[in-house]
Amino acid sequence: MRRPFPHPLNLSRGMVEMSHGAGGRAMIQLIDEIFGAAFQDPTLARGDDQALLSLPAGRVVMTTDGYVITPRVFPGGDIGSLAVHGTVNDVAMSGAVPLYLSAGFILEEGLPLADLDAIARSMAAAARAAGVSVVTGDTKVVERGGCDGVFITTTGVGVITDDRLDIAGDRARPGDAILVSGTLGDHGVAVMSQRENLAFETPILSDSAALNGLVADMVAAVPGIRAMRDPTRGGLAATLNELAHQSGVGMAIREADVPLKPAVRGACELLGLDPLTVPNEGKLVAICPPEHADALLRAMRSHPLGQEAAVIGRVVENAEHFVQMETLLGGRRIVDWLAGEQLPRIC
Amino acid sequence: MRRPFPHPLNLSRGMVEMSHGAGGRAMIQLIDEIFGAAFQDPTLARGDDQALLSLPAGRVVMTTDGYVITPRVFPGGDIGSLAVHGTVNDVAMSGAVPLYLSAGFILEEGLPLADLDAIARSMAAAARAAGVSVVTGDTKVVERGGCDGVFITTTGVGVITDDRLDIAGDRARPGDAILVSGTLGDHGVAVMSQRENLAFETPILSDSAALNGLVADMVAAVPGIRAMRDPTRGGLAATLNELAHQSGVGMAIREADVPLKPAVRGACELLGLDPLTVPNEGKLVAICPPEHADALLRAMRSHPLGQEAAVIGRVVENAEHFVQMETLLGGRRIVDWLAGEQLPRIC
Repeated sequence: MRRPFPHPLNLSRGMVEMSHGAGGRAMIQLIDEIFGAAFQDPTLARGDDQALLSLPAGRVVMTTDGYVITPRVFPGGDIGSLAVHGTVNDVAMSGAVPLYLSAGFILEEGLPLADLDAIARSMAAAARAAGVSVVTGDTKVVERGGCDGVFITTTGVGVITDDRLDIAGDRARPGDAILVSGTLGDHGVAVMSQRENLAFETPILSDSAALNGLVADMVAAVPGIRAMRDPTRGGLAATLNELAHQSGVGMAIREADVPLKPAVRGACELLGLDPLTVPNEGKLVAICPPEHADALLRAMRSHPLGQEAAVIGRVVENAEHFVQMETLLGGRRIVDWLAGEQLPRIC
Repeated sequence: MRRPFPHPLNLSRGMVEMSHGAGGRAMIQLIDEIFGAAFQDPTLARGDDQALLSLPAGRVVMTTDGYVITPRVFPGGDIGSLAVHGTVNDVAMSGAVPLYLSAGFILEEGLPLADLDAIARSMAAAARAAGVSVVTGDTKVVERGGCDGVFITTTGVGVITDDRLDIAGDRARPGDAILVSGTLGDHGVAVMSQRENLAFETPILSDSAALNGLVADMVAAVPGIRAMRDPTRGGLAATLNELAHQSGVGMAIREADVPLKPAVRGACELLGLDPLTVPNEGKLVAICPPEHADALLRAMRSHPLGQEAAVIGRVVENAEHFVQMETLLGGRRIVDWLAGEQLPRIC
C-alpha cells in the first residue's frame, strides 16, 4: 500500500478532473482514496497493472458487460451494484462459481467525487455480498460532454468446479421444461417509472441481484440443466428467441404461468410496454429435461431469490425456431424479439 | 453459428442505431456481421454470454483497460489495434503469456458502421498477430452526444507458465539495472502531431505494438527480472515513480542514455512536451539484478521490438523515493510525475 497523500481528496465537494485520468499523481490518489478505500482488496492495493488470480481446479469462464444506465441511481440499486450483479450473473449462467471482477471506469470531467465514491462503495458492497473480489481496474477521464457521467465495464472470471455440468445455449431439446426464477419486468419498470416520474401505491424496485447463490443450489440439485440465461436487455422474449435459435428448436410458453407482479403489469399497461420484452437484472431462465423439472423448481423455490419460480412452458420442435405463447384468453401468439429500441440505457 | 440475416447491414452507408444496443434482433445482427465476421472465433460465435477458456497450467493473470483515444485513427494505429496492444502488454508485463481478450464496446448513435467495421477488423488483425483470441464481448449504444463515437474496454487473461518468474512492481532493489526497450514518446507525439496538424519531414508513427513476443524472449533469457511495466499514460516519469514508490526505493537515470528519436525530440520542443512524460504504447521498462543486465539487454536487442533497448540507470536507496536524472548538461534534476493533464485522451 502506498503512503497516504498529504491532502486527501475532497469527497464532499470535489469533482473529477482531467488530471484524474492522466496517469500521474492525481490518478493514483483517486484510485487509492476512492477505489482502494472501497474495495479493500490486497491484490488491487499492490498497485500493479494486472492481478494474479488464485483459481480452484475446473473450467475457467470469462464474461464482460458495459453499464451505461440512466439515471445512475434507481429504485433498488445503482450503476455500481448493477455492474457487479450483471457480470456475476453472466458468469453464473454457465454454472461457474464467480470469483473475480475487473472494473473499467470511463468518467466525465466534472462528475462529483461524492457520486463516484458512492458508486464505488455500492460496487464493493455488492461484490462482498456476492463473494467476488474486484482485483484490477482502470480509470479514464474524458472532457465535459465526452460521455454521460460514468460508464463502467466489468469483466468476470469464474470456475466450473463440477465436471458434470454442461450448460450452454445450444443444448435445449424438444420436450425440455422452461423455468423462470421469479417475476418478470421489475428492473425495467422500476427504471422507467423513475424516468417518467411515475409514483405507484406499491413502489416497484429493480430486481438487481447476484444469482450465483441460487445457481449453486440449482446445479447441486439438477446437474443436468441444459441451458441458463438471465433475461436482461430484450427481456424474456429476447432470451427465449436466442436460445431457440442457438439450439435449433421452438418454444411454447403459457402466459398464465409467467410470474408478474400486479404493479408491474399495471405499469406496463400505463407505459405501453410488453412485460416480456422488459429487462430483468435478478432473474434467470433455465431449461432442463422434463423429468428433472420438479426437482429444479423445488431447489429454486427454496432459495430466497427463487421463491416465485415457475415452469412456464416447454421446448418444442419448430423449423422456424418460433417462440409461441398461449395467451390468457386462450389464443396463441408469436413472441418475437424487439425489432427496435424500447428502453434505451436500461443497463 | 446463427443463420445469416435476410438483409445484411449496409457497411458502407449504415450507422449505429439505438436498436443495435437493445438486446434484440438488430443487436444480434450487428454482433454477427461486424464482430463475428472480424474475429472469426468459434467461442464468440456460439452466442453464449460467457466464454469457456482453455488454460495451460500456471498462475492466471487478469488486467483491464479502457480506450477513449481521439482521433480514433492516428499515424501507426487506431483505437482497435491499441485496445488489443495495450491490454496484451499489461498481461505480458507480469511475465504471463496473454491468451484471451474480452471486448466491451460503448457506441454513440450515428457512428458510421464502416468505422466500427474498420475498428473491429483492426482489433482482429492485432489479436491474431499477438496470438490472442477475442472470446467474448458486449455492445452498448448511447444516444447522440452520450459518448464520443466509440469507447472500448478490453480485459485480458494470461498464464504465467514458468514457475521461476516473480515479476512485480514492489521487487526493485538498490543496485538493480533499469532498462527500456526502445525510443520513448513516439505514441504521444504521433497522436498530438495529428491533432495539431503538424507535418514533419520524417512522419512520426505511434509505437503501438504487442510486446508479448519480446517479453517471452526476455524472461527466457533472464527469469530473475524483478519488475516490468509499460510506460503508457504519464510516460517513463510516471512508471519510474510508481515503481519507486511500490518498491520503496529511488531511481537514478542518465538523460544521455534515454533513447529518443530526433524527430520526437524536435516535436516535443515544438509542442512544449517533456518526452519523459509522453505516453508509449509499444515500449517497456524492465528492472533486473545488475549481474543480469547484459544478458537482458542482449535478449531485448535481438528482438525486432527491442533493437534500440538501453540501460538507462539504476535503482538506488532513497527515503523520499525520488527519481533523479543526470541531465545532458551534467546537472541533476528530479523527474516528477505530472501534476496535471498534459495529453488528454491519448489512449
